[in-house]
Amino acid sequence: MNIAILGAGGIGKAAARIIEKKKGIKIVAACDKSGYAIDEKGINSKKIYDLKKDESIASIGKNSDDTIGNIIKSGRFIDGILITLPNLPNEFIPSVAKRFLENGYKGAFSDPLKRTKAMKIMFGMDDLFKKNECTYLTGTGATPGLLSAAAVLASQSFISVDKVDIFWGVGISSWEEYKGTIREDIAHLPGFTVEKAKAMTDEQINKLLNKSDGILKFENMEHADDILLQKAGVIEDLDKVTVGGIMDTRHAKKPVTTTMTLTGKTFDGKTSSHKFMLGDETTMAANVLGPALGYLKRAMWLRENKIYGVFGSTEFMPMVVK
Amino acid sequence: MNIAILGAGGIGKAAARIIEKKKGIKIVAACDKSGYAIDEKGINSKKIYDLKKDESIASIGKNSDDTIGNIIKSGRFIDGILITLPNLPNEFIPSVAKRFLENGYKGAFSDPLKRTKAMKIMFGMDDLFKKNECTYLTGTGATPGLLSAAAVLASQSFISVDKVDIFWGVGISSWEEYKGTIREDIAHLPGFTVEKAKAMTDEQINKLLNKSDGILKFENMEHADDILLQKAGVIEDLDKVTVGGIMDTRHAKKPVTTTMTLTGKTFDGKTSSHKFMLGDETTMAANVLGPALGYLKRAMWLRENKIYGVFGSTEFMPMVVK
Repeated sequence: MNIAILGAGGIGKAAARIIEKKKGIKIVAACDKSGYAIDEKGINSKKIYDLKKDESIASIGKNSDDTIGNIIKSGRFIDGILITLPNLPNEFIPSVAKRFLENGYKGAFSDPLKRTKAMKIMFGMDDLFKKNECTYLTGTGATPGLLSAAAVLASQSFISVDKVDIFWGVGISSWEEYKGTIREDIAHLPGFTVEKAKAMTDEQINKLLNKSDGILKFENMEHADDILLQKAGVIEDLDKVTVGGIMDTRHAKKPVTTTMTLTGKTFDGKTSSHKFMLGDETTMAANVLGPALGYLKRAMWLRENKIYGVFGSTEFMPMVVK
Repeated sequence: MNIAILGAGGIGKAAARIIEKKKGIKIVAACDKSGYAIDEKGINSKKIYDLKKDESIASIGKNSDDTIGNIIKSGRFIDGILITLPNLPNEFIPSVAKRFLENGYKGAFSDPLKRTKAMKIMFGMDDLFKKNECTYLTGTGATPGLLSAAAVLASQSFISVDKVDIFWGVGISSWEEYKGTIREDIAHLPGFTVEKAKAMTDEQINKLLNKSDGILKFENMEHADDILLQKAGVIEDLDKVTVGGIMDTRHAKKPVTTTMTLTGKTFDGKTSSHKFMLGDETTMAANVLGPALGYLKRAMWLRENKIYGVFGSTEFMPMVVK
């Protein structure tokens, strides 16, 4: 598996750490906003995750005004692309993916995309991916991803699904390791917008976090678990899916156990709930990037089997029978 | 989805009850040892689940010495086959499946097969299924099935898996509803063999259950979750998977919550466990037959996409990256 990693923030670096432990994957290309590195024989993962805060991939590769363009030029030896770019604005990741196709790239993609609006744009490009014989799996992180897939499994015991509740706990010792992710999360808070959060300075973020001892609480987040579960047939009404969470930006310990609870009715009229719970010692990085790489391998498998298009992380489980 | 149900014991009847609630499936053929019913327009589910204990499908269809042979003759309008036959002896279900292929049947299969040995025989027929352009999904019940699939999802957060522990609770108000299943379970008890359990009279079973107030406890069961997880790459050593459970044969309430616990190590050196827990109010029937039908639909989808062969219920999740 020769892969490219687009984006080398906290999430991209965590991917490099995981890949270092696996023999079956090689990073052959990586980029950020101002730099890129390409090596068909493989880039040492350590070089990527050892980059200092605010240090660009340029320091282990080359500077460029068009880093994505340079990755695309090496597309012939890239089997799959892991997208760990900032999710905002919503059009950003879809536009990058589209550019790969428009320039003749043939391969697989995995993207731990989070927002419903961004994912809708991705699904709208299904025909383009089919025409170009590429396979894109979206929502391949923890939530959406691991937990939404678990909801599809859980739904199998029920005739109808009343509610899917996803509540996550994240603990990070320093928010500055995840500068993109924290802004995406702040954008979910009441009174904030995507644009407003993205424009915040580090100082403004520190000030906001000081108000609540580094704890951020989220309710009714705009999270793509809803359309992923709708697309898989688990629910029809998007309101049946709720996502919330608590993030501690000053302690690695999780403030709450990440849990997916699916409540439904069985054929014999009982109401019950199945649960999927993530161990508290597993970090956001482990729960997002492990699945994202597992789904990238699945995307390659689908492509080898001539199954092209844009699909959700929920779409290759046992199917929902109506 | 026009399906055939092979076997009309407790499990087959529960399938009929579930199908009654779903618009997208029609039972067009059903059989047991001595009778079969075929109707291209659909057999009323109620007719099947209303059959009395020890009453054959012959009473709503026809008698035959070769009921399977008669189902095969109608194969042209059967898209998929749900196998709810007794699992014992281990060669029985594989031999039935083989007969369909040898007689030119083209379609999909789903089978909530349980024992490792039986599943090995099924996997040994992969080439035959590929050659005949048929797709067979095995281990599609609760365990193996729903819980083994959840283990594949859970494994995504880890670099290595230490242990997968599946412990189930089943409560049934009367064991006589599941005469085949109870014998299969008894065969797992110390001092019993498959042959010995199969040969037990109802009276002997009553006597055995009286000794423990209807409670049966199981440890280290021979359950195919192990090879299913090995095939998916989650574990190499089969001993890392343990399956046990407690069955109450006199109360519908579950004696213990069915739980899959996967323990592994993360890329950053932590040991942790993810859990998948089934709601206590969901019956064995809901947790086995819901998934079995969901996997049958998936098997049809695979076949439509020209993916033929014998696969486990663990093989279409995010993939394990080594």
